Amino acid sequence: MRLHVVNPNTTVAMTAKIAAAARAVALAGTVVDARQPEMGPVSIEGFYDEAFIGEAGFHIASLVAARFAVVTTLGVSIVPIEHNLRKYGLAERCARVRAAEVPVLALEERNADALAKISAEITAAIRDDRAEAIVLGCAGMADLAAELAATHGLPVVDGVAAAVTLAESLLRLGLKTSRLGPYAAPRPKTYDGLLSGFRP
Amino acid sequence: MRLHVVNPNTTVAMTAKIAAAARAVALAGTVVDARQPEMGPVSIEGFYDEAFIGEAGFHIASLVAARFAVVTTLGVSIVPIEHNLRKYGLAERCARVRAAEVPVLALEERNADALAKISAEITAAIRDDRAEAIVLGCAGMADLAAELAATHGLPVVDGVAAAVTLAESLLRLGLKTSRLGPYAAPRPKTYDGLLSGFRP
Amino acid sequence: MRLHVVNPNTTVAMTAKIAAAARAVALAGTVVDARQPEMGPVSIEGFYDEAFIGEAGFHIASLVAARFAVVTTLGVSIVPIEHNLRKYGLAERCARVRAAEVPVLALEERNADALAKISAEITAAIRDDRAEAIVLGCAGMADLAAELAATHGLPVVDGVAAAVTLAESLLRLGLKTSRLGPYAAPRPKTYDGLLSGFRP
Amino acid sequence: MRLHVVNPNTTVAMTAKIAAAARAVALAGTVVDARQPEMGPVSIEGFYDEAFIGEAGFHIASLVAARFAVVTTLGVSIVPIEHNLRKYGLAERCARVRAAEVPVLALEERNADALAKISAEITAAIRDDRAEAIVLGCAGMADLAAELAATHGLPVVDGVAAAVTLAESLLRLGLKTSRLGPYAAPRPKTYDGLLSGFRP
Amino acid sequence: MRLHVVNPNTTVAMTAKIAAAARAVALAGTVVDARQPEMGPVSIEGFYDEAFIGEAGFHIASLVAARFAVVTTLGVSIVPIEHNLRKYGLAERCARVRAAEVPVLALEERNADALAKISAEITAAIRDDRAEAIVLGCAGMADLAAELAATHGLPVVDGVAAAVTLAESLLRLGLKTSRLGPYAAPRPKTYDGLLSGFRP
Amino acid sequence: MRLHVVNPNTTVAMTAKIAAAARAVALAGTVVDARQPEMGPVSIEGFYDEAFIGEAGFHIASLVAARFAVVTTLGVSIVPIEHNLRKYGLAERCARVRAAEVPVLALEERNADALAKISAEITAAIRDDRAEAIVLGCAGMADLAAELAATHGLPVVDGVAAAVTLAESLLRLGLKTSRLGPYAAPRPKTYDGLLSGFRP
Repeated sequence: MRLHVVNPNTTVAMTAKIAAAARAVALAGTVVDARQPEMGPVSIEGFYDEAFIGEAGFHIASLVAARFAVVTTLGVSIVPIEHNLRKYGLAERCARVRAAEVPVLALEERNADALAKISAEITAAIRDDRAEAIVLGCAGMADLAAELAATHGLPVVDGVAAAVTLAESLLRLGLKTSRLGPYAAPRPKTYDGLLSGFRP
Repeated sequence: MRLHVVNPNTTVAMTAKIAAAARAVALAGTVVDARQPEMGPVSIEGFYDEAFIGEAGFHIASLVAARFAVVTTLGVSIVPIEHNLRKYGLAERCARVRAAEVPVLALEERNADALAKISAEITAAIRDDRAEAIVLGCAGMADLAAELAATHGLPVVDGVAAAVTLAESLLRLGLKTSRLGPYAAPRPKTYDGLLSGFRP
Repeated sequence: MRLHVVNPNTTVAMTAKIAAAARAVALAGTVVDARQPEMGPVSIEGFYDEAFIGEAGFHIASLVAARFAVVTTLGVSIVPIEHNLRKYGLAERCARVRAAEVPVLALEERNADALAKISAEITAAIRDDRAEAIVLGCAGMADLAAELAATHGLPVVDGVAAAVTLAESLLRLGLKTSRLGPYAAPRPKTYDGLLSGFRP
Repeated sequence: MRLHVVNPNTTVAMTAKIAAAARAVALAGTVVDARQPEMGPVSIEGFYDEAFIGEAGFHIASLVAARFAVVTTLGVSIVPIEHNLRKYGLAERCARVRAAEVPVLALEERNADALAKISAEITAAIRDDRAEAIVLGCAGMADLAAELAATHGLPVVDGVAAAVTLAESLLRLGLKTSRLGPYAAPRPKTYDGLLSGFRP
Repeated sequence: MRLHVVNPNTTVAMTAKIAAAARAVALAGTVVDARQPEMGPVSIEGFYDEAFIGEAGFHIASLVAARFAVVTTLGVSIVPIEHNLRKYGLAERCARVRAAEVPVLALEERNADALAKISAEITAAIRDDRAEAIVLGCAGMADLAAELAATHGLPVVDGVAAAVTLAESLLRLGLKTSRLGPYAAPRPKTYDGLLSGFRP
Repeated sequence: MRLHVVNPNTTVAMTAKIAAAARAVALAGTVVDARQPEMGPVSIEGFYDEAFIGEAGFHIASLVAARFAVVTTLGVSIVPIEHNLRKYGLAERCARVRAAEVPVLALEERNADALAKISAEITAAIRDDRAEAIVLGCAGMADLAAELAATHGLPVVDGVAAAVTLAESLLRLGLKTSRLGPYAAPRPKTYDGLLSGFRP
């Protein structure tokens, strides 16, 4: 199996971290191919999060906890993540989306201050939101999952690793995205051809 | 007031139709500026609809009906429109999203077959979904709203015209998109500057 | 266009304030006609709020914020306003309904204490409910909207002004309340005529 | 226990039918006092239904069925009943609200045509909506409940009788409507007294 | 009427308390038969709560309050009770499920410390959750309902007593659990008979 | 990894089929251990389904389709499966739960009639419910998934195989069921010990 993981920003160090998280959990036969665009912003926050790889983490968290919380980087990402949770139909399982107010780039290398802020949000999620598991809302946090899980004594889900195992699961189950709904093959758009079927 | 209306596809005739629909309802002092990208697909259907100007039509329909239906062009657009309704929190007001299976480009000029298919979906929406109003799910249908309303005896909302009156309403009420949530001004992304606040 | 605004209580000063709020935002050609009943309570709170003009403010707030809060006068009005939000299908957009514990009549003229209490609730709504906009839940607060918006740096929506612009929008769009659902024209109630169609 | 049952229309025969339904199920010590206004419409349909005694029937139906349907008189009553179901938080239990298109007054005395129309809706509710129980949406149908239950082989709930047993249950449990929420005792409305607490 | 009340644990004193609560509210003609298993755990908390008699209390609380809170024994019971509220379709009426962290057995006899903890949760539910009524989430609290209601000035519902009055109500209304849905009579399971209808 | 799969009924052939479905998808290092009780019913339908292994199939279907339908054996299982979908917070993703009216035991060996009935429900789910994928609601259908997927051209998910890949995914991700919520370790129940902490 060949998995293409696309880091939507242009920061090379971030792509390397995501690739490492993916490879750490991938099966022996899976090749992880991590890429990034050549041009574009060095980091992505806010509404761009709505297109991000978050669904896998929410499903995995739902399997190990009745209620989970999401801890993301900045406050601008809260509403887009809530939109995704509602779109995926998983909003009821999420106790709250919290922002550590740590920018994506601050996560590029180990950073005690960023770690402390994320940890404080997890503490609050357990105490105030009755969260039983945490989904990390940013791929840049992937390398912190195990440490945070040990510190707080609850499952901490990294979306990149979760996505790898679910993609492999779909392959092993012989399942592909359905072609009956929004991912139906597009119709040809040659103007003449299209209208021929509609002329009265 | 100056309103910028962006037609996301590259078909010039479509841009002209959208501009005409916007100008027909705009107040005397409003200048409507309709544009389109120079490169890109000649029409847009499916998940691109999730970024489209639909919210205005849903709010206006909610003011004149307890339950409305959306009639869009192709089946691939149904799920993205449902996602938007859920995202806007208006899904409960929508009885059903229906597709007339008429491609966007077929709507470029008056087309009896396309009109008949759209009309048939409105008939079904009234009879089977108990819809009391219709929102047209594609800007290319803008010039059909009045005729369909007269034929079926219920309010038919064109999203372009609805968006113009709501934008003007916000201006007159002195309201702008809130800067407290997902539209907060972005933080500067210079790497050094960012991290300085995070070094322990 | 002629707009009839009905103040449901009998306090003349309140009717004047509502009329002023409506006229401040109305288009040049709109005549605002504000009235009140001759007999009845001097102010109205609690379940009477369920019949009140609140829907307009909720829709306008939804256009400028992902989450809004409502600040109303007394605690007895919270549940009726929540019922309306659920009825309109907009409950998901409302972070919380808050009461300033300021009776309607205290708002009749400028009142520093009432203003401070309303302001404190807005502060709490931003901090604790993550509200990005405020809807004022009582027509008597109409003259405070601009001042509160400036103080707190977020959109503050007065329902009376919102309703005026939406009513004008519907007129310009050529839309009226649908006659297909709950507002269908009533059947004649002459007893004999009615039953004639039912005798076996 | 003394129960006041108010028939909101002015038709004396309807009041007598409601009183009979209430007395048939009341406990030995309960006195049922049925009244009607002296002036007003001879029957009530549509949005007036939102103030009607329906909640009891929905709760009782929830106890005997996972999904129930409501069968009411006219189509104008469907949306108001749906609003009530949403307000009471019981909308998920209701498969569908159906109208037999039988006006309230046609139910004043036994009427084979009205009975057939109501019965046809129950048949459709079982077949198409997977309803396991029926709530009759109009007090005028009270005397038909037992016959319809026998015909269709499922529980048929009359709201008047349901309300009597629930009111008696509350009395026996020593419970009254809470005074902490929307039914808090109203504040005195003397203008001077009110403002005294608000002067700075 | 003969009511069988089953205490799912093996503690005799608890069965006696439940029987007393049931008999205190039962009608003159009702015989209450309380039983317990001979073998099994001395108390039951957590997911076993999902099979417990809670629905009656939620319906009764909905009749006297717009929002109620549930106060149960231990934190492990919160999620199962939330599951039940969602299953019954009454989750919207429940402001919050709270645990007093008092084990079931501590309630076997009057216990000032347990009472204080339950009382503290009720205080918090009124202040923080805007609860207008309380449902006691454990049959072992049945004898505390009246005292807690008097202390806090709001309705406090004991599920055992509520279930007795609702069961009697159903009997008087002539209603039984519907046989059309999940409680349909089981098909015979003799292997041969079953397959005979399926052989091609 | 060692996976214990428990067939809740006593039919040996069914256990063998479930084990085969599990082993067909399991990773090389996974040992599948399938068991059944020695005493009990030969098949299980209806409310027992609420305790059944269904969540895995719903999550997997959500990854390949915006809307899925469930096809189960008998009508008595529809409501319990709907309860589970609501409990898991995935009800919005499920278009409809359908019953083929095929008893579990009829699925023990290949059976053309049962297959035709299941296939007819899938046809109806695509046409009437706009389902894009199917979850098989009974472990006895496991061997039919590939054939039904090929016939209908959409993903068909067998819950047993889905559960195996998800369990393996959790293991590889280092995640276990959270101990913070309903699965917290039970408190010791020695009567004296318990009460000692509560005596005043």
